Amino acid sequence: MSEINNRDRAVFEAGIKLGALYHQFVGTPINTDMLDGLARMIEESIGVQPFVRSISVSIDAEMVEKNQNQEFGYCELEGRMLHVSLQVLYKNIIAHAEMSYDEEKDYPLMSVKKIEEM
Amino acid sequence: MSEINNRDRAVFEAGIKLGALYHQFVGTPINTDMLDGLARMIEESIGVQPFVRSISVSIDAEMVEKNQNQEFGYCELEGRMLHVSLQVLYKNIIAHAEMSYDEEKDYPLMSVKKIEEM
Amino acid sequence: MSEINNRDRAVFEAGIKLGALYHQFVGTPINTDMLDGLARMIEESIGVQPFVRSISVSIDAEMVEKNQNQEFGYCELEGRMLHVSLQVLYKNIIAHAEMSYDEEKDYPLMSVKKIEEM
Amino acid sequence: MSEINNRDRAVFEAGIKLGALYHQFVGTPINTDMLDGLARMIEESIGVQPFVRSISVSIDAEMVEKNQNQEFGYCELEGRMLHVSLQVLYKNIIAHAEMSYDEEKDYPLMSVKKIEEM
Repeated sequence: MSEINNRDRAVFEAGIKLGALYHQFVGTPINTDMLDGLARMIEESIGVQPFVRSISVSIDAEMVEKNQNQEFGYCELEGRMLHVSLQVLYKNIIAHAEMSYDEEKDYPLMSVKKIEEM
Repeated sequence: MSEINNRDRAVFEAGIKLGALYHQFVGTPINTDMLDGLARMIEESIGVQPFVRSISVSIDAEMVEKNQNQEFGYCELEGRMLHVSLQVLYKNIIAHAEMSYDEEKDYPLMSVKKIEEM
Repeated sequence: MSEINNRDRAVFEAGIKLGALYHQFVGTPINTDMLDGLARMIEESIGVQPFVRSISVSIDAEMVEKNQNQEFGYCELEGRMLHVSLQVLYKNIIAHAEMSYDEEKDYPLMSVKKIEEM
Repeated sequence: MSEINNRDRAVFEAGIKLGALYHQFVGTPINTDMLDGLARMIEESIGVQPFVRSISVSIDAEMVEKNQNQEFGYCELEGRMLHVSLQVLYKNIIAHAEMSYDEEKDYPLMSVKKIEEM
């Protein structure tokens, strides 16, 4: 097939960022009061990595509330609680990627949504 | 030896919190602009866990600056960049513990500093 | 209260190891075929840390099987799947600690079981 | 630009796996005796994830030896110690990706090496 191109690289970098985000932050002790702060911090952290053009993270408060331990009042961040929208810019290519919980598959699905040329 | 007592439990819980903090957050992508935000978030996260009375986290900005990759402008949080002071309250016992970088041993040392009865 | 003693230090180190184990390895992609190998590797890894006298890890295969995603055939290591028995030796003191899933509390409980003088 | 295609998806999945591997396993306590065992376990763990056709991991023993703490005889797995070769198969497309330490950039570089049609 053809040589590796900028489109490949943009999409590859988007995958790296979502995989990194997931395995760095899943397991973080949380309660419903700190979700916004944590979401902003994850955005900042992944945002310092190469080629990230923008990132938006939200955490499902309802799911967190349901998961909080009755006795201890907290739970841990799980992949299915996360919704992430990410844009990676590599040279002239923008890859839009997403992570969101797929209820039917019961799985935090990562996907490429759109690829643009600037 | 004597039965497990509240002092043992307070000190044990302090150890758990420092071990958890270390292995949850080491590896987080960072730059010098986001250190305060990250430190507050780590305090909040560890603070939701059982028996934490207070916690104060700081990250060594000078070390981060030295470690930032020249080309990409970021690095990862390392244990030796962290300074943590923690108080655990178990029943009537307060255990004061600390993590800080020991230059001589080149090691992020965790230690119990003081044990108080309320 | 009295000065920090070897008993405090042994118990504190046991807490550190359990907190570290939990937050390092929770999130690891697993299936039922690789549980023994992973358990041995976790024992080795925590075993290289200071003051660990012995450690035994097992992972609940039934829980893993139930958690495996239908479509993708794997899941992630969770705290409640782990059973850990740990001995820490600090000077002349052995602290026996454990992590195991408490069904009633629905929580992976860590506890000190026994403290011995050698 | 054109719709998301199988080539995009293969490359994206390869990125996810490398990002996941890095942030799951960096920080693991290690010494030079356990590197092969850990490398096999990482291969198994990433290998259970969707679309992984093959994976080969090695850990730089020389770098580990240099990093081992003098007093405590161990260190932590760092990104630059890892060499990973990965093949992802998505439908009829194989993406070959790699992570290896780039000395000049002082950075654990991830890259797509080749894309094949089956």
